[in-house]
Amino acid sequence: MNIALRQHIEKITSLTDAEFEYVESMFTRKRLRKHQFLIQEDSEVLNDYWVVSGLLKAYHTDDDGKIHILQFAMEDWWISDYQALNNHTPATIAIDCIEDCELLVLSRDNKEKLCNELHSISDFFRKKSSAGYVALQQRILLLLNKNPQERYNRLFKLQPILVQRLPKTLLASYLGVSRETLSRLNHP
Amino acid sequence: MNIALRQHIEKITSLTDAEFEYVESMFTRKRLRKHQFLIQEDSEVLNDYWVVSGLLKAYHTDDDGKIHILQFAMEDWWISDYQALNNHTPATIAIDCIEDCELLVLSRDNKEKLCNELHSISDFFRKKSSAGYVALQQRILLLLNKNPQERYNRLFKLQPILVQRLPKTLLASYLGVSRETLSRLNHP
Repeated sequence: MNIALRQHIEKITSLTDAEFEYVESMFTRKRLRKHQFLIQEDSEVLNDYWVVSGLLKAYHTDDDGKIHILQFAMEDWWISDYQALNNHTPATIAIDCIEDCELLVLSRDNKEKLCNELHSISDFFRKKSSAGYVALQQRILLLLNKNPQERYNRLFKLQPILVQRLPKTLLASYLGVSRETLSRLNHP
Repeated sequence: MNIALRQHIEKITSLTDAEFEYVESMFTRKRLRKHQFLIQEDSEVLNDYWVVSGLLKAYHTDDDGKIHILQFAMEDWWISDYQALNNHTPATIAIDCIEDCELLVLSRDNKEKLCNELHSISDFFRKKSSAGYVALQQRILLLLNKNPQERYNRLFKLQPILVQRLPKTLLASYLGVSRETLSRLNHP
């Protein structure tokens, strides 16, 4: 039994042993090496992913080939291209591994099946989606704040472990500053 | 009976007449004039809101007093400060009316009650939250795109009616350009 997954779900809703066994049976496992892609732009997106271990980035590549980071994901976080997953459209972002990753894979069909069959799981994903919405709102407020030191402080306050694990180049990119500017900022 | 609300919910999930009557009984009505606040920064947030008519903006004011628009909401959209609503924390954004507004108000307690009692309503809010997440992802990709004409084109493609209804000053602010730059862009 995946204790971490059960603890993760039971932070929000409780499940009987039989329910959890059923929920767990809907997932498959996936391992990826550092630099491998989980989702490539324009590809079909069929799954939601829960991170068992590792670190990933979701990003968009502009016409000049520059990457813009949308979000990171590490242990206990869910990640996918939800626009593509919800609307059955091709991926508009790419997701790849910053570290070796182990993931639990929940297909769109199995997610819908679980949500239809178990009120508690529908409720779990409702609350996770709402939390994800809030995380993106934070991301937007971070982007809109014009002061790089403030952006750095705010990110560190929200996600201290993430900041420590991120390569400096990616941290600079997420904050929207150059590597040189980042090195001149005070560590929060 | 509020036919528009029923149609809005039934785009996602179906309800019996008795269920809809019960759902509707959980809402109250609120009318606001243009320029009035729905939520002020640092205030307590107790409700989610569904827009019957009108247009609102959610925004953050930075230390220099400059406003940064997070999102707009018009007929059929939900709006609140979800960070404050979910986490019982003070509002970090303000929401005010661009036009006279009529809203249906669903308190946090009534929303939870409905989601606990009706699987279909839990499912409805799960799907709405996920759609809201995707809308914010679009907003981020819009912000990250450095080309103002591209940002304008993308917004118009996603929300043509919104673009036509917005005062030009707010449209410029949302796109992150000056009023002068906006007037030089080609209408998509």
